[in-house]
Amino acid sequence: MIILGVDPGIAICGTGVIEKTSVGYKPLYYDSIITKAHTPLENRIEIIYNEIVRLIDEYRPDALAAEELFFNNNAKTAFAVGQARGVILLAAKQKGVSFFEYTPLQVKQALTGYGRADKQQMQHMVKSFLGLSEVPRPDDTADALAIAICHGNSVKFNNLALRMKEGKI
Amino acid sequence: MIILGVDPGIAICGTGVIEKTSVGYKPLYYDSIITKAHTPLENRIEIIYNEIVRLIDEYRPDALAAEELFFNNNAKTAFAVGQARGVILLAAKQKGVSFFEYTPLQVKQALTGYGRADKQQMQHMVKSFLGLSEVPRPDDTADALAIAICHGNSVKFNNLALRMKEGKI
Repeated sequence: MIILGVDPGIAICGTGVIEKTSVGYKPLYYDSIITKAHTPLENRIEIIYNEIVRLIDEYRPDALAAEELFFNNNAKTAFAVGQARGVILLAAKQKGVSFFEYTPLQVKQALTGYGRADKQQMQHMVKSFLGLSEVPRPDDTADALAIAICHGNSVKFNNLALRMKEGKI
Repeated sequence: MIILGVDPGIAICGTGVIEKTSVGYKPLYYDSIITKAHTPLENRIEIIYNEIVRLIDEYRPDALAAEELFFNNNAKTAFAVGQARGVILLAAKQKGVSFFEYTPLQVKQALTGYGRADKQQMQHMVKSFLGLSEVPRPDDTADALAIAICHGNSVKFNNLALRMKEGKI
C-alpha cells in the first residue's frame, strides 16, 4: 500500500510518500513545496495543487492522509492552512484517492504510543520507521511522513471500522 | 466588464455574476452553492470548485472578487472558509481570471459610502444597484453580489493603481 502524507501550508507544505510493505515502511519520496511570500496567493495555491497532482500521478497512492484542524491556532493561520488544504483535498477527490485525516494526538500516538510526544521524539520515530540516516528537513517534510506512517499504522483499524460500518462484521 | 463575486463558505457559498455597463450594473446570475453537512468534505469542496469553474466557463468573467479574511472570526470558521476559498482561487487561476479581494469595510464603503453599514442597508443597496424587485436570498448570495459591485465600483481606482505601478503615470 502506498500512502501520501501531506502537512498543508501555504508557505511550506510538507509531502511524503511511503510504501507499507509486509516488513515495514519504505520511503519513496519526501520534500516540501515552498512558495514565496510575495507570489500572488492564487499562484501559490496553484503550485501546491499542481505538485500534489504530480505526486498522485507519479506514485499512485492508495490513500492521502493529512492532519485535522488544530483549533488552538489563530484564525489567520487557520485560514491560510485551510486554503492550501482545500486544493489538496480537491486533488485527492479528482484523482480518486481516498482521503483520511488524523488529529495531532492520533499522529503522536501512532508513532510513539504517547500523545504528548515532542517534535524531537516524533522526528526520531519517523527516521527510525523509514530507516533514514537523517531526520528529513524542514520539519514540515518530517510531519508529512509522520502523518503517512500514522495512516499506515491505523489502516488495520480503519479497515475494521469500514467493514463494521458496511455491516460485514 | 463581467464580474463574478463569491462569498466563500463550505456549507453555503454565495455566487453572483454582474455586468458593468456604461449606465450601471446588470445581474446575470446569482445563487448559492449549498453542500450538506454529512457529505464528505472532499466532495463538498469538489462541488464548490466545479460550480465556480462552470460559472467561469458560462459567463467568462473579467474578474473574480471575494472578501478578504475577517480576523475576528474563530479558527474553526476561518479554516472551513479557507478550504472553500482555496479551490475558488485555484479555479480563477486555472481559468486565467484575475482575482481581487476586498475587506468587509471596503465592500461596505463601496456600496453605501459608510464602513459600518448594517446587513439591511447593504442588501438594500444590492437590490437598488441591480434593479432587483427583491433582496436575493440567502444572505450569502446578496453578499456575493455586493462584493461584485464593490469590485465594479473600485475598478477605476484599481486601473489607476495598476498604471501607477507600471510607471505609466
